[in-house]
Amino acid sequence: MKNYCFIIEYIGTKYSGFQRQKNGLSVQEVLENAIFLATNNKVQVTPSGRTDSGVHALGQVVNCFLDSNIPVDKLSVVINFHLPLDIRVKNCFIVDDSFNSRKSAKKKTYIYRIYTGETYSVFDEGRVLNYPYKLDFDLMNKAAKKFEGEHDFRAFARSNSSVKTTTRKIFSSYFTKDFDYLTYHVTGNGFLYNMVRIIVGTLLEVGRHKKNIFDIERLLNGESRVKSGQTMPPHALYLESVEYE
Amino acid sequence: MKNYCFIIEYIGTKYSGFQRQKNGLSVQEVLENAIFLATNNKVQVTPSGRTDSGVHALGQVVNCFLDSNIPVDKLSVVINFHLPLDIRVKNCFIVDDSFNSRKSAKKKTYIYRIYTGETYSVFDEGRVLNYPYKLDFDLMNKAAKKFEGEHDFRAFARSNSSVKTTTRKIFSSYFTKDFDYLTYHVTGNGFLYNMVRIIVGTLLEVGRHKKNIFDIERLLNGESRVKSGQTMPPHALYLESVEYE
Repeated sequence: MKNYCFIIEYIGTKYSGFQRQKNGLSVQEVLENAIFLATNNKVQVTPSGRTDSGVHALGQVVNCFLDSNIPVDKLSVVINFHLPLDIRVKNCFIVDDSFNSRKSAKKKTYIYRIYTGETYSVFDEGRVLNYPYKLDFDLMNKAAKKFEGEHDFRAFARSNSSVKTTTRKIFSSYFTKDFDYLTYHVTGNGFLYNMVRIIVGTLLEVGRHKKNIFDIERLLNGESRVKSGQTMPPHALYLESVEYE
Repeated sequence: MKNYCFIIEYIGTKYSGFQRQKNGLSVQEVLENAIFLATNNKVQVTPSGRTDSGVHALGQVVNCFLDSNIPVDKLSVVINFHLPLDIRVKNCFIVDDSFNSRKSAKKKTYIYRIYTGETYSVFDEGRVLNYPYKLDFDLMNKAAKKFEGEHDFRAFARSNSSVKTTTRKIFSSYFTKDFDYLTYHVTGNGFLYNMVRIIVGTLLEVGRHKKNIFDIERLLNGESRVKSGQTMPPHALYLESVEYE
């Protein structure tokens, strides 16, 4: 038995999130079935974290212990053979037994993609938010920067989420712009339920001058969820990468 | 009755090409149904040209005569309301009665997208060719340039195609490169059946040193279809734009 680490890419559209559940097909279930068909190992994979229903991943990281004699550089190909085209293993390597995708993760980066022009492309359907509004890009970036550092993010979590602490550390938070496309980039040591989508909803209100920098500061100083922005839809959110030491 | 011109974008994946036909759903059929639902006009639209089954369009141009009192700047919205999410009217304007999308077209530009890296993305499925080979980019661009000018393209047309002449004029033909992504761009006064896909198949063989510049010259000087490259799949081909005077 060796500890295998996989880098996974998926289009979340058809799945009810990463985590296995009774009432819907999850990425985890499909992946574990493919690993079984490829290696005859019945496993439960550990992800760096769950992604919500409809959220995509460019670099999800999972690990599991396998007893297999397939060479590690061939294993991705064999597993991919058993996966649908919207889930791919991009990389596979054997790691130390102590490695745990979730517990060993130091930083996670998400991106959120937004189209602000007038003619939303058919090719962006299900992948980019259609948001045809004039936005104050510089102000949004100033507001985004306020999220950096350690804060109590209770105002940016789905209200019924039960976690030990709502404090998280954000290492970087900013927007980039490419013509009519904006991308929000955020790297943190962890994220609360719906946190990125609520942050984006709040920053878009800043962009439309419905909220200002002081509102952001107040929200980061313990104001309640009701004062923050709406939860933006999942289809424009991507787990980009996970960093380990 | 006024002559309306529409710029259309579509994902060709689900359709049996642009042109209406008995044995499959076409973009034309879906578009004409939407125009009927929006304006109560039973029309037959004229495209700049057909696109094959599975081929996409970023800027297909169609026209038709309509009797409608919907303001022209609102018409796209109303028609889009009746269209599936993989077909969109991007623009609409009233043109001179003499305008005909097909006959008035002076230049058409197609692009063909190719991924040459090792980890084909799930997001490129159905949109970009997965072609994980080392390619000689400079040689491909030299060979691509040979297509410019007026030539007999009989070696680059599906053999059973029946057209008056196989001579076409190519205004520009070149590749661009963005990391592991190549895009072939070709602008001409018209294209034979499968012509762009066969040109790409031939140029990819040049990139792999299976054909050389002299082979291309011979093919453009009347050699037969059997000597040119294979027809590459439709899912990476896009009708990018059509130019009128």
